[in-house]
Amino acid sequence: MYRLGVDLGGTNIVAGLVDESMKIIDKVSCKTNLPRSAESIIEDIAMLCKKVVNQNHLEEAEVASVGVGVPGTANRKTGFVEYANNLGFDDVPFVKLLENQVSWPVYMDNDANAAAWGEYKAGGYKDDSFVMITLGTGIGGGVIIDGKLLRGVNYAGAELGHTTINFQGKPCNCGRVGCFEVYGSATALIEQTRYALEYEAAGENKKKKSLLWKLCGNNLNKVEAKNVFDAVAGGDYFAKKLLDDYTTYLAEGLANVINIFQPSVLCIGGGVSKAGDVLLNPVKEKTNRLIYSKNSAVNTNITIAKHDNDAGIIGAALLGLEGES
Amino acid sequence: MYRLGVDLGGTNIVAGLVDESMKIIDKVSCKTNLPRSAESIIEDIAMLCKKVVNQNHLEEAEVASVGVGVPGTANRKTGFVEYANNLGFDDVPFVKLLENQVSWPVYMDNDANAAAWGEYKAGGYKDDSFVMITLGTGIGGGVIIDGKLLRGVNYAGAELGHTTINFQGKPCNCGRVGCFEVYGSATALIEQTRYALEYEAAGENKKKKSLLWKLCGNNLNKVEAKNVFDAVAGGDYFAKKLLDDYTTYLAEGLANVINIFQPSVLCIGGGVSKAGDVLLNPVKEKTNRLIYSKNSAVNTNITIAKHDNDAGIIGAALLGLEGES
Repeated sequence: MYRLGVDLGGTNIVAGLVDESMKIIDKVSCKTNLPRSAESIIEDIAMLCKKVVNQNHLEEAEVASVGVGVPGTANRKTGFVEYANNLGFDDVPFVKLLENQVSWPVYMDNDANAAAWGEYKAGGYKDDSFVMITLGTGIGGGVIIDGKLLRGVNYAGAELGHTTINFQGKPCNCGRVGCFEVYGSATALIEQTRYALEYEAAGENKKKKSLLWKLCGNNLNKVEAKNVFDAVAGGDYFAKKLLDDYTTYLAEGLANVINIFQPSVLCIGGGVSKAGDVLLNPVKEKTNRLIYSKNSAVNTNITIAKHDNDAGIIGAALLGLEGES
Repeated sequence: MYRLGVDLGGTNIVAGLVDESMKIIDKVSCKTNLPRSAESIIEDIAMLCKKVVNQNHLEEAEVASVGVGVPGTANRKTGFVEYANNLGFDDVPFVKLLENQVSWPVYMDNDANAAAWGEYKAGGYKDDSFVMITLGTGIGGGVIIDGKLLRGVNYAGAELGHTTINFQGKPCNCGRVGCFEVYGSATALIEQTRYALEYEAAGENKKKKSLLWKLCGNNLNKVEAKNVFDAVAGGDYFAKKLLDDYTTYLAEGLANVINIFQPSVLCIGGGVSKAGDVLLNPVKEKTNRLIYSKNSAVNTNITIAKHDNDAGIIGAALLGLEGES
């Protein structure tokens, strides 16, 4: 049997067809086009699901279920998305609305939970405890303990991005001050880069020496996280300093996660994680200096996600496997 | 059958005799008298265990086990205390050394885990997820998920006191900066009080108007956390301001814990928690303003521990109940 996994994001909706070996056979997508109603978004999810099944010449009966990763609080018991800030969802009977549109049973979970679950299962991790941190627009967290997702009493648990690491620091859009995601997300890295470049340009010599200027086309609004890693690869001192600060922030948040869970594996996913070792090596070194168990014989293995963008789709698809998540 | 529970602290060692209804029948104690060797401390633990059994006219065979709560990393698999900063323990074969001295099987766990376990079991909480924060010399954490203690891959998990909430803030003796315990422990409250009183005394008018001066006998070295609560009860403005700051710090750390675990119950224990509602009410209000799930229908119940000092002894005693913790 195949299963459908949907990644419902603020920018794109992606539906993937997943086979029994947990591989994505095919995927289709459309723009989320916010703002629009939950009903309209759910119609598009149904359309994408049917489309990917049809274009692979499958019967609907060959597909067992649809799972959706939602960027918000997904109450699996009631089937309601209680709250999804980026989508503008507030108490949406999500499962019912989608089941009205498709012939398959519908499952849902928080998107970071789905990603952690997909990476954990498809990545072949055998460990009992596994934490995934997704560095993207925000910071998502997914926690697996004793082989089960940690969801919390109200399905709003594992919000690792919304733990303060600096309560006297920068405000977060969740209403708190100094959340991990304000310092460690891709968005944060972009802001740190813009700020530093503005500072360089406004300096005494009004110079724009950093390679980053070239990489962003001299346009601060076009800075991407990737530019920083490319500039580091190009030997740019300025970018190296930015990366050094950024990995210092990341280490503070990751050391918190380790001191709390001491998981077997702490996996870093999301766009920024594509940088690979140039990110991972300093993060590991700095985090291991901060953790409480630095003298322990066994410590958490900090690693980069293997499935990255696909983890969310695979994990969502696997939500239909009863009792598995 | 009875069980022995031992609370091994930096100041006192207390051994309690616990009956099948999870009540402490009797307890005996001695000073820890640091610094001294692990062997010497373990001799005293054995002595206390035998003493409390004898003075209650029990046969040794009527006692099933000894459990010890250790302020450090207690590796239950190897029986070694890998590290206990306050005791000066470094890779001590604790279980073996104590089993050499007594006729009972010996169990051990981290002291905060033991306290959480004791409060959870003896407090009659029926919830799957339960977190206890102990506000004492430091901040201890104990986490129960799906009815099981969260220990981490190396038994150093749930160090909730050693998560930074202000990485640009005050240094912690764990080597990090801005740990929760630097702001939220009893020690922190005492330091905040001393600092504020020094500041008052050094002010322009060299005045010592706060009731706190009287309560600490005009001696800043004798300030206790209790003084602050007594001064608040006496209407002291100065103490009210201190408590307001302290509960603000506590709320930052507790909101982190909730955003991570969303447990059914978050229980506050330790000396400071004896203050009761004057502490709990502002902490609840401030924490609930900070949490990510503020609009959720179900939220974590923040409460004060029922068993407080006894929880550690009861929990340690219950460690012997196979498979229970």
